[in-house]
Amino acid sequence: MAAAVGALSSVSLGLVASGGSCPPLTVRASRTGGQLSSARQSLAGLRFHVVSQERQQPVSMTSGPVAEVAKTLTQDELKMLAAEKAVSYVKSGMVLGLGTGSTAAFAVAKIGELLKEGKLTDIVGVPTSKRTAEQAASLGIPLSVLDDHPKIDLAIDGADEVDPDLNLVKGRGGALLREKMVEAAAAKFIVIVDESKLVDGLGGSQLAMPVEVVQFCWKYNAERLKNLPEVAGCEVKLRMDGDKPYVTDNSNYIIDLYFKTPIKDAHAAAKAISSLEGVVDHGLFLNMATTVVIAGSEGDSNAWHDSSSQFCLIRLDAVGGENSMIVHLIQYAERNFVQLHQDLAS
Amino acid sequence: MAAAVGALSSVSLGLVASGGSCPPLTVRASRTGGQLSSARQSLAGLRFHVVSQERQQPVSMTSGPVAEVAKTLTQDELKMLAAEKAVSYVKSGMVLGLGTGSTAAFAVAKIGELLKEGKLTDIVGVPTSKRTAEQAASLGIPLSVLDDHPKIDLAIDGADEVDPDLNLVKGRGGALLREKMVEAAAAKFIVIVDESKLVDGLGGSQLAMPVEVVQFCWKYNAERLKNLPEVAGCEVKLRMDGDKPYVTDNSNYIIDLYFKTPIKDAHAAAKAISSLEGVVDHGLFLNMATTVVIAGSEGDSNAWHDSSSQFCLIRLDAVGGENSMIVHLIQYAERNFVQLHQDLAS
Repeated sequence: MAAAVGALSSVSLGLVASGGSCPPLTVRASRTGGQLSSARQSLAGLRFHVVSQERQQPVSMTSGPVAEVAKTLTQDELKMLAAEKAVSYVKSGMVLGLGTGSTAAFAVAKIGELLKEGKLTDIVGVPTSKRTAEQAASLGIPLSVLDDHPKIDLAIDGADEVDPDLNLVKGRGGALLREKMVEAAAAKFIVIVDESKLVDGLGGSQLAMPVEVVQFCWKYNAERLKNLPEVAGCEVKLRMDGDKPYVTDNSNYIIDLYFKTPIKDAHAAAKAISSLEGVVDHGLFLNMATTVVIAGSEGDSNAWHDSSSQFCLIRLDAVGGENSMIVHLIQYAERNFVQLHQDLAS
Repeated sequence: MAAAVGALSSVSLGLVASGGSCPPLTVRASRTGGQLSSARQSLAGLRFHVVSQERQQPVSMTSGPVAEVAKTLTQDELKMLAAEKAVSYVKSGMVLGLGTGSTAAFAVAKIGELLKEGKLTDIVGVPTSKRTAEQAASLGIPLSVLDDHPKIDLAIDGADEVDPDLNLVKGRGGALLREKMVEAAAAKFIVIVDESKLVDGLGGSQLAMPVEVVQFCWKYNAERLKNLPEVAGCEVKLRMDGDKPYVTDNSNYIIDLYFKTPIKDAHAAAKAISSLEGVVDHGLFLNMATTVVIAGSEGDSNAWHDSSSQFCLIRLDAVGGENSMIVHLIQYAERNFVQLHQDLAS
């Protein structure tokens, strides 16, 4: 493991997609760099092509005690790593969208810590749920709402699934609508996940894809959801809270969709689901993430990142409107990540 | 007035639109039949062209005491006429969508009356609001919900606006979402209005076009609605109930949009409004009405129907899917209507 990290080669990538100038990209891969996973290749195929490949010993990778990297981290440690990496993008004076869920909670905690230490000032947090509002308030983070702060500088939140196009499934925590409202209002939206959330296609985890519906005739809508050709073969279940239906912050129910195979066309599925009267929103977050931070443990050769490294940062920024999204940076096994990992592992 | 009715000419219309065979249409117009209103001409221009025109004395119009037609009816009398005409389409054994509002209430009352008299049997009503459910229950109409009766044979409801394409604004009564759910599930949807609801373009009444939104950050959504290019120039107001916001049956708020001029492209507006996170539904009911029954008082030369007659029935049925809607019948100053009118006016 350590040997692999210490012998990285470099692959320079250039953009296939048009839509603006872009600096050359650098991806570091292991000596066995040809074995990028299928999902990774899918990502590359969609947006990149390899323009040159040369072996190179990156200076940044030789300076740390890389042997320590090998320790396997727990899922919570990975979530915390991703969260702290995301919070490193927060600057004083920002209006922040504060996500909901176990990973987002690490980010909120870190922001609270930096505020307390005086390392961040003039932060305003816009929480995506009552739970997050309570956590943030307890940490002394000044809070607001979209009504008063309709423009968010940066939103940070977890996700339940991330596909190779940085599309997401969110909302297993039940806060999908408020999350979507706040995150759609954000100039930048950083998604933080551990590697277990990576899927080749949305729905691929075989876990819940939530749809928020009004309580009125939810069975009727569950049946209609099940029968949509765009989500053919899915199972539908009303989300429960003990022996009663789970009720969202907006007094609605959630119907969870379970897929045996990934959704073929997530955009078509989103459109079809939204078109049903009584559907308030759904957990497909498409073309919304501008950055995904993925924290990985050692040696999962099926994940997008190379098996020799610990972390992968994929960054996608919107330039000039929703249809001109371009990937402008991939930093793979980024030095900061490895160091961050070492700090925790030592 | 009576003289005009007694001297109708006949205009035969044929379909311009393709999409299936269609019997010839007959429109009766007054001696001054060339003076059809602009809205009427718009309707004709969209779907018809005149294939022949000949003066003719319709037998049906000479048999009644047409002089009595001249009495001006109140708006409530007109609503009742339209409602009773719609109820004439109800057959025993049907599952009925029961609308909400002052006009729909007349239809529900009539259905209750026919059930009581034994002229209708085996009716199941699916109400579109708590109010309608209460009214129907008090009249002994057996009730159900979409969960148990997902297919409605016939829905009857009022509308706040009807445009020449039979698109509607609905929901000033606050029940828009449940109405849309039930009426979208109906094989036939008869809309009943008095002539005051006719507009050249949706929004043209300058009265409220409602948008149901979650309570969370409604001000933010009101601002976003106001700024949508598709509804440019509209004013937005939170609907109130005394000094508190009006709350729908689904625990949501309603933001009313007021237009100075009709919406240019109702389909584009509907799409843009629906795309906002937190919007649950809106009052634009497009491509939904299969029949509109319009009850008119005497002599409004600006209405679609001719100034010489009392009633206008425009009937639009869906054949083979939503994109093959064709008008297959216009009955203008239809005999039944005049007789119905006479019964009431005498």
